[in-house]
Amino acid sequence: MGNAELPAGAEYARRVPVPPGRPFLDTFKANLKETFFPDDPLRQFRHQPAPRKLVLGLKYFFPILDWAPTYTFSFFKSDLIAGVTIASLAIPQGISYAKLANLPPILGLYSSFVPPLVYAMMGSSRDLAVGTVAVASLLISSMLSKEISPTQQPSLYLHVAFTATFFAGLFEAALGFLRLGFIVDFLSHATIVGFMAGAATVVSLQQLKGMLGLHHFTTATDLISVMKSVFSQVHQWRWETAVLGCCFLFFLLLTRFFVSTDSCRTLLSKLIQHLSALNVLNFEISKSIYQPNLSLNPLDNDKKQSKRNPRFFWVSAAAPLTSVILGSLLVYLTHAENHGVEVIGHLKKGLNPLSATSLTFEPSYLMVALKTGIITGIIALAEGIAVGRSFAMFKNYHIDGNKEMIAFGTMNIVGSLTSCYLTTGPFSRSAVNYNAGCKTAMSNVVMALAVMITLLFLTPLFYYTPLVVLSAIIISAMLGLIDYEAAMHLWHVDKVDFCVCLGAYLGVVFGSVEIGLVIAVSISILRVLLFIARPRTTALGHIPNSMAYRRVDQYSMAQSVPGVLILHIDAPIYFANAGYLRERISRWIDEETKSSKGEEMDLHYLILDLGAVGSIDTSGISMIEEVKKIIERIDIKLVLANPGSEVMKKLDSSNVLEAIGHEWIFLTVADAVAACNFALHKCKPNDSSCEDAV
Amino acid sequence: MGNAELPAGAEYARRVPVPPGRPFLDTFKANLKETFFPDDPLRQFRHQPAPRKLVLGLKYFFPILDWAPTYTFSFFKSDLIAGVTIASLAIPQGISYAKLANLPPILGLYSSFVPPLVYAMMGSSRDLAVGTVAVASLLISSMLSKEISPTQQPSLYLHVAFTATFFAGLFEAALGFLRLGFIVDFLSHATIVGFMAGAATVVSLQQLKGMLGLHHFTTATDLISVMKSVFSQVHQWRWETAVLGCCFLFFLLLTRFFVSTDSCRTLLSKLIQHLSALNVLNFEISKSIYQPNLSLNPLDNDKKQSKRNPRFFWVSAAAPLTSVILGSLLVYLTHAENHGVEVIGHLKKGLNPLSATSLTFEPSYLMVALKTGIITGIIALAEGIAVGRSFAMFKNYHIDGNKEMIAFGTMNIVGSLTSCYLTTGPFSRSAVNYNAGCKTAMSNVVMALAVMITLLFLTPLFYYTPLVVLSAIIISAMLGLIDYEAAMHLWHVDKVDFCVCLGAYLGVVFGSVEIGLVIAVSISILRVLLFIARPRTTALGHIPNSMAYRRVDQYSMAQSVPGVLILHIDAPIYFANAGYLRERISRWIDEETKSSKGEEMDLHYLILDLGAVGSIDTSGISMIEEVKKIIERIDIKLVLANPGSEVMKKLDSSNVLEAIGHEWIFLTVADAVAACNFALHKCKPNDSSCEDAV
Repeated sequence: MGNAELPAGAEYARRVPVPPGRPFLDTFKANLKETFFPDDPLRQFRHQPAPRKLVLGLKYFFPILDWAPTYTFSFFKSDLIAGVTIASLAIPQGISYAKLANLPPILGLYSSFVPPLVYAMMGSSRDLAVGTVAVASLLISSMLSKEISPTQQPSLYLHVAFTATFFAGLFEAALGFLRLGFIVDFLSHATIVGFMAGAATVVSLQQLKGMLGLHHFTTATDLISVMKSVFSQVHQWRWETAVLGCCFLFFLLLTRFFVSTDSCRTLLSKLIQHLSALNVLNFEISKSIYQPNLSLNPLDNDKKQSKRNPRFFWVSAAAPLTSVILGSLLVYLTHAENHGVEVIGHLKKGLNPLSATSLTFEPSYLMVALKTGIITGIIALAEGIAVGRSFAMFKNYHIDGNKEMIAFGTMNIVGSLTSCYLTTGPFSRSAVNYNAGCKTAMSNVVMALAVMITLLFLTPLFYYTPLVVLSAIIISAMLGLIDYEAAMHLWHVDKVDFCVCLGAYLGVVFGSVEIGLVIAVSISILRVLLFIARPRTTALGHIPNSMAYRRVDQYSMAQSVPGVLILHIDAPIYFANAGYLRERISRWIDEETKSSKGEEMDLHYLILDLGAVGSIDTSGISMIEEVKKIIERIDIKLVLANPGSEVMKKLDSSNVLEAIGHEWIFLTVADAVAACNFALHKCKPNDSSCEDAV
Repeated sequence: MGNAELPAGAEYARRVPVPPGRPFLDTFKANLKETFFPDDPLRQFRHQPAPRKLVLGLKYFFPILDWAPTYTFSFFKSDLIAGVTIASLAIPQGISYAKLANLPPILGLYSSFVPPLVYAMMGSSRDLAVGTVAVASLLISSMLSKEISPTQQPSLYLHVAFTATFFAGLFEAALGFLRLGFIVDFLSHATIVGFMAGAATVVSLQQLKGMLGLHHFTTATDLISVMKSVFSQVHQWRWETAVLGCCFLFFLLLTRFFVSTDSCRTLLSKLIQHLSALNVLNFEISKSIYQPNLSLNPLDNDKKQSKRNPRFFWVSAAAPLTSVILGSLLVYLTHAENHGVEVIGHLKKGLNPLSATSLTFEPSYLMVALKTGIITGIIALAEGIAVGRSFAMFKNYHIDGNKEMIAFGTMNIVGSLTSCYLTTGPFSRSAVNYNAGCKTAMSNVVMALAVMITLLFLTPLFYYTPLVVLSAIIISAMLGLIDYEAAMHLWHVDKVDFCVCLGAYLGVVFGSVEIGLVIAVSISILRVLLFIARPRTTALGHIPNSMAYRRVDQYSMAQSVPGVLILHIDAPIYFANAGYLRERISRWIDEETKSSKGEEMDLHYLILDLGAVGSIDTSGISMIEEVKKIIERIDIKLVLANPGSEVMKKLDSSNVLEAIGHEWIFLTVADAVAACNFALHKCKPNDSSCEDAV
């Protein structure tokens, strides 16, 4: 056997080498590195003296040490403007979301003061604006309200909320330290689209309480129970609030629309186009391609867009604060608060009180706090990381996801000790921050200072702010998150992804946020498993005047080789699909032999193209050996083409290599076919003397 | 753009076609078929008249209609011998396993009467011998004992056991009808090896109760608590039982060993060799290769082995019954039952009483029954299917796994109505059946009749049978299931599979059977997910005097192409790995550009070999587009080679195809490289005029 006896066939038999066995620990370490440190973050630390290492380490965890020394006044001007802008957005949004989370409104302001300062020190994104988000706020209220009533036990509710925030921070930081950032990747783009849309729907529905001035409202978030509790108390609706709310909503939507017609469209489509890369909103790709005025170079877009109409963008950014001021004035002048229009009322002056002591770890509430913390934590993380990455990619600087997680984690841990609740980097606010021309994380500091001033002196001004305006602000913010176009695009490109998206949406709207997430993630994982469990096997044919063999069903010109069946397996061979592949290959051979009846030459060789078999396990190995045995009974010889190093190694170590014969394993399909033809025309393969000769 | 302007490069630019869009329903139906009907079971029904269809349908569900008409007397003779043989094994084993399940011993006999008859009608395996199995019995006792005490509430315990059996049957049949057979495949070979060994260990430990004649024993199955309850009552040990037990155990092992030295070794290694194909025990492959006296053709093995020493095999088959008879005689003569040697005692004469009425569906016990049913059901299924398939493969006839599941299901449903508990096709008994020369499922009928006669007339003979003998029988049967060699082989071939195996073993031994299963399955699935989440990207190089490009790390002779980086992605691109791939590819480019500094030509082209990318989702598509944008900023052009039809379709439908340019997508890596070289040497690629020219 072997090449020695293969004179005429020698040129075909380019040997596929068996990789040399490496010590187990090396392979293990290599795999570990690939899995947890694919980006090799410690590169810079190598071959450095200890003190330098320390400095680098500090800079690694506190990027501010990196940019602060080179910080210029011109930078500061831009950051100042940006900071003030986002503050004007942060204050009303903060109050609104705090109400949404059934927490005292002042917490919204607290949460826009401490966390931004922490992030400014530890965060590596220059465009992220820190703040609370609607979805997380809703999650907190819906999950905590099941256990604790925010109206009967407000202080307990508050303390558990802090604890949940603490756990969220702990969880986020842990993910970062353990390099488990990739867990976030399991929230696929489709999941997020569906989930966000669902959450936006649910959040908007919740606002009916404020819009209609209802006092009693369900704690459940699903469509049915909300609708029930709305229409069960029609007689309680307050027309004053309704009218006021609709007016402000109309005003806000108008500004959004008005702006979105030009500058914002450019900004958004530009952003979205880049976010798309991060699987966050990639429906816009198709759109952006039809926008000739968009170049891929961010800078000249900037110029374009800032040249064209800067003031329009201010309109949308300032709209919420404007409507808060208008609403407050209106109520103050008309004394509408006595006619059933609820107002925020008294806000305590002063900075964040410490809340370290009020973290509660009693077993009875520990579980709910933990659960809430982890779920809200991962949601917040997903949004924050995606937004941060997208802007980084857009301004062409790099962000280490795991490092960001540590920053977010610390931010929330510190927050939970200073009466803040869960914060992250919201898309809307960061977009405004970017668009206001921020240069560094300093804009967050400016925002924090603005909020501080508000906390110290301006809180009384919010006394007359009607809640309905806050509802209007939330709704107008939420409507931006529902993009049916994304769903359409998913349906257009990938039906399974569409199902994931729809599952998430329906799960959130009719079940709860958690249910929606579970459905979406499990569909996504099921899809992966199904791909593994049912790999595609396709017959290959020869592409005329080339050495290439390609799928017959894909390339019309591919010609099958008489007497030889070439099968391509396009997935790793694992226990989960070994059985299926055995069945499927036998079926291929049955069909082939049936069809080749009566032709000049019936089937003699089965060539398995293992080029796409990235990995194999023991079950897979024995599957191959079994196939060999089955087809040998009907005088068909098994030939392997282009096996990867892992496959070769395992074939060798399990002694299947000898069973097949190393001389029957070829570098390319072409070589294999050549060898088969050589043998076919030299002699009939079913006479064994020839088997030995080859 | 396009081929028109590609005169000199024309011969390279063989277009990769975009597959024509098929209507959604067609694709959907095709996928459904591939997923659930890969073996196309309804082939035979096509183009048949209705009555013929009916007959075929009946034959499909009742294979007996197929073989009964052609059943000959010579067949019957063989089946008679085989039937009697397995009966002699079934009776003592049945009683032992019933005791193991904390059920009345008579149930063991009942369960060897009705189910075999059902299977004989519906089963399509000719060699499977139906009966109860140790693992399932242990599972039933361990899971039910948690809720209901078999000693305090024996009748309730019995009824719930029937209910569990009923659910198990329902579950199995459902799996079959819903074509979900592949769920069983998720119990990988490694899992089963570890699990079986663990179960065997645990079962043997349980027998210490019988061997030491203890009355009180823990219901837990884990090593620690068993050891505790054994050594906590040393003063209770009965030396009589211990001595008797050890003698019989020695006798049984002696026969096993004695036989296994020749005929059985042949039989087992032969069987195991074929079982291996079904991922059940494939460690023996390596061994069998070194057994020159083994040919791959079953028939002449048969001859050899039956020529050589038929009587040796009888010894091992008859040993259990022999020891039961000896034991009973011994006790009868020495009246050892009065000296603390426990005996079976009175067994009720007569056939299976109906138990339909005693199925209990009260909510308080429904859950435990359901859980037990499903877990035991799937374990039983895994063993039964594997054994059936292996013998089928061995005698070269085909078995439809899903059909078998329906047979097993019906068998257990009927069983649960006629006071039987869970049955399947045990490996040991089927092996004996095969070796006794059975021809059809008739051997099961013979066994059933033999058991019936026992039930009607011979039950009194078991009055004096000492329990300790039963324990000895179980232990000797279990020891055969522990094969460290399999574990060694796993470690040798695939470390991950070894972890799975070890996890299953430790889980079962130190936790419980369920825990062991959960650990093993989750490690297996995690491995699959990890493969998807961390696909390998490898640089390709040119293999001298060929058109082939292969992994540089695998083929030492592969030469990299100056100015071009060729990357091979060997997994589907999904949301779970899109982010990682982006990072990893940029790292490849960084390293490449660093290394290519100072060389005559720096990097200009990135060729992605998508040959192994079997599937892609929207996240994957946008990942590719993002990579394109990133590398274009540093004047590197993205080129795709050999994308599959699904990839092409999605690139097209998401308009990324235009973005990349159809003329930059090539049939083979060689074509792509040729085109790149053509462009490189025609002009510098970073001057845009040239970009357009190509």
